Amino acid sequence: MKSSRRGFLKTATVAGAGAFTGGFISGCKPKQPESNLAMILESAKKPHTQAFNMSGYAAPALPLVRVGLIGLGDRGSGAVQRLSYIEGVDIRALGDLRQAAVEGSQRYLERIGRPAAQEFYGDEIIWKNLVELTDLDLIYICTPWVWHTPMAVYAMEHGKHVVCEVPIARTIDEAWQLIETSEKTKKHCMMLENCCYDFFEMLTLNMARQGMFGDIVHGEGAYIHNLMGDNFKKPIDDRQSDGAYTGMWRLKENAERNGNLYPTHGLGPICQIMNINRGDKMEYLTSMSTDDFIMGKRAGELAAGDEFYAPFADRTYRGNMNSTLVRTNLGRTIMIQHDVSSVRPYSRLHVVSGTSGAALKYPEPSRIALGHNWLRENELKDVWDKFTPEIIKRVGEMARKVGGHGGMDFIMDWRMIDCLRNGLPLDQNVYDGALWSSVGPLSEWSVANRSQSIDVPDFTGGSWKTNQPHGINLETGGTTKVIEVTEAEEEMQMKIS
Amino acid sequence: MKSSRRGFLKTATVAGAGAFTGGFISGCKPKQPESNLAMILESAKKPHTQAFNMSGYAAPALPLVRVGLIGLGDRGSGAVQRLSYIEGVDIRALGDLRQAAVEGSQRYLERIGRPAAQEFYGDEIIWKNLVELTDLDLIYICTPWVWHTPMAVYAMEHGKHVVCEVPIARTIDEAWQLIETSEKTKKHCMMLENCCYDFFEMLTLNMARQGMFGDIVHGEGAYIHNLMGDNFKKPIDDRQSDGAYTGMWRLKENAERNGNLYPTHGLGPICQIMNINRGDKMEYLTSMSTDDFIMGKRAGELAAGDEFYAPFADRTYRGNMNSTLVRTNLGRTIMIQHDVSSVRPYSRLHVVSGTSGAALKYPEPSRIALGHNWLRENELKDVWDKFTPEIIKRVGEMARKVGGHGGMDFIMDWRMIDCLRNGLPLDQNVYDGALWSSVGPLSEWSVANRSQSIDVPDFTGGSWKTNQPHGINLETGGTTKVIEVTEAEEEMQMKIS
Repeated sequence: MKSSRRGFLKTATVAGAGAFTGGFISGCKPKQPESNLAMILESAKKPHTQAFNMSGYAAPALPLVRVGLIGLGDRGSGAVQRLSYIEGVDIRALGDLRQAAVEGSQRYLERIGRPAAQEFYGDEIIWKNLVELTDLDLIYICTPWVWHTPMAVYAMEHGKHVVCEVPIARTIDEAWQLIETSEKTKKHCMMLENCCYDFFEMLTLNMARQGMFGDIVHGEGAYIHNLMGDNFKKPIDDRQSDGAYTGMWRLKENAERNGNLYPTHGLGPICQIMNINRGDKMEYLTSMSTDDFIMGKRAGELAAGDEFYAPFADRTYRGNMNSTLVRTNLGRTIMIQHDVSSVRPYSRLHVVSGTSGAALKYPEPSRIALGHNWLRENELKDVWDKFTPEIIKRVGEMARKVGGHGGMDFIMDWRMIDCLRNGLPLDQNVYDGALWSSVGPLSEWSVANRSQSIDVPDFTGGSWKTNQPHGINLETGGTTKVIEVTEAEEEMQMKIS
Repeated sequence: MKSSRRGFLKTATVAGAGAFTGGFISGCKPKQPESNLAMILESAKKPHTQAFNMSGYAAPALPLVRVGLIGLGDRGSGAVQRLSYIEGVDIRALGDLRQAAVEGSQRYLERIGRPAAQEFYGDEIIWKNLVELTDLDLIYICTPWVWHTPMAVYAMEHGKHVVCEVPIARTIDEAWQLIETSEKTKKHCMMLENCCYDFFEMLTLNMARQGMFGDIVHGEGAYIHNLMGDNFKKPIDDRQSDGAYTGMWRLKENAERNGNLYPTHGLGPICQIMNINRGDKMEYLTSMSTDDFIMGKRAGELAAGDEFYAPFADRTYRGNMNSTLVRTNLGRTIMIQHDVSSVRPYSRLHVVSGTSGAALKYPEPSRIALGHNWLRENELKDVWDKFTPEIIKRVGEMARKVGGHGGMDFIMDWRMIDCLRNGLPLDQNVYDGALWSSVGPLSEWSVANRSQSIDVPDFTGGSWKTNQPHGINLETGGTTKVIEVTEAEEEMQMKIS
């Protein structure tokens, strides 16, 4: 399939074709429907009877996990590196639309002395060939959002466990597809919510489990991160992302949907702390967006000097800041925010507020209170010493060396592989990914309806009442070894990243 | 009227009687109706045609401002002290149900060599006699919330300007009463929102006026302050507050209403920065409360050991945390929170987020960003040097000495008196107090209706489109002198406070 910049302007859908690294490639769009407000409401009302309860599900142990990765941009190429440090992982297949991306990760494997992986590139549906390989256990997806659900569903249908970047679903209908497929195939479907594995978030999870905050009453999360530079970055050519979002796909998301498009980083850690889907559930939410004061203006300015931006200049963009309130069955609330365009410091707000204590991250440094004052430095150190979970003690140091958002990406990958190798349930199951992602479309509906509240579907089909808290190994760590970073590798690492 | 602890248990309303320092006294309740959800919705839909536009209204100058104060608890007795440092103020009348409270403030005036004020105490309707005095210009109200509107309306009807503690209205109907009375009488009706005068809030107001944040997109405010101790504090006797809330009135507010009961501290500064009622207006809001995990439990524990608390043990209390989202006509949003029972550090969140910068207070220290990072200490100092308003330079130092929430109360009083003496419009007019207070009942309605959104009344009757930004004297300061604090007075001050 030929592609060109001009092609981007077309809106026709080419049947059967899809760009698995982004929508810039001509008019090709994935098959799933655009976000549609009426469909959101209808899909949110769908009742669900579980075919099989994937919460707590333990698949047969896989001492060797044979992995195929799709999407080798910043996230995917980083995942190749991280996985290479984990015992029992065999990176067998690499897929990306762009040959250069595949070859980059292949070179990395070669330099650290690993066998070459099979390569898949150059064709927009070639990812299906990768998924269809019979010698893979796990598909690791790091593609643009529109491809997450189609690829994850296809992987499970072809007998693979699947893990996928956030958000794993853009619509409620996609969320149901994931759940139905996972229950039918009994394959793990984990959204890669890395923020659940950040050091402070895991500290607060462990403290919450041990009752240090008392009853959890309220939580907050956010993704406030100015992405104006990356979102408006012009690609060098159609098949090279230039480090930004291939085909301007992320900017287009901001033009097509108005709500919290990216709720999971803030939600994940809070939902784990509140045992959402495992004793509590989301009941309803309400959401409010500002108008756009920034993106449309920038598009107009850029279009004045470069016709490439012309199609972006006559669009309406999502409101810069979205705030969403969620109420749970047990009467707790969660406040989630999303802003990728305002000029303000990065914040992935993490607030835990309970009957006997509170936690706050952003602004940094992180804070804990067990009374009416934030703990002093020495008191906080004692809390870190006492409540740092075993899993962090085991792999935290290595994680900081390997990197990936400060280490949390490595902890996540290591924990996921350790669970697969030991036949343990994953920390995040299909219901979690579906629920956390669903706040996106549900917020779209509420924003479009003057912030009227909307019921959150019970994706667990009632099993939230009896599902047990997720089993993240806070107390005993795991068994999988970490392959130590040598000095030479560290040096190489620095050059690559 | 006799009172007793047993009397508190009665619910009968005694016609014509009212406790102007609190509801503990027997069953006496003020005449205004209890909060009522159907009435909130009905009153919120009421159209309004101004009889006279009080926005920007300048009353005739009063070189000498003759003041009568009603309510001499913590707030009122502090106001007596603060006003005594301001040129052109004559404290002529002191009123409280409790003789001891009146005598305390009278002693203060005597010690600093001022003429004795007329005293009003011992009778539940004697405050009306104070208001009816013919030689007063201003009534200063610091009583429990239920008395704010009745007293303010009565004061205006008797030819007095009125200033009143927050919130100035508990219901939408009360908000309309204030507006109609102020427009009819052309008397100032200012809610004493002291947080508008805190140092950082005024810095950010001045910066916003000078465009340092660009277009303001989103703002946040809060009142998060654990009041469990004071709210549950048993009075020593019926007529002595013991430093807490006479007659347990504040605890009862938390049992009778579920929403953001106290929104104005967070809202006021943000509304001034956004020019709400003066170029922009609130359009609708949605609100969500948690359940109560704390107050009912505490009441039960206390009741087990002391029958005094028995009537509090079988009540349902408001949710511990309330979060409210407001959308404005210009497409901006405001997030407001309220929690007086969770164990967490004090926060009166002040977030300003614009197209070219941001501000954040709480956790302390205060932060400003004009790009993607919070300013460093030396950069922040430069901002303080450049943007501290003239009014702060003029009275800020004295304010810190006199005190009152760190000085902001004094700045507020001084500015209000300076405006009255010079015949200037007050910074906060009746529409502001009504609007900011109305978020209380509007949030109650939304919380009770599964967070459905509710339209915010246009209290200005359309004049918001042309009203000018409030005239707080950021550039030139004022003319009223401050009476310097002598060392002796400082010493006395410390003993009193």
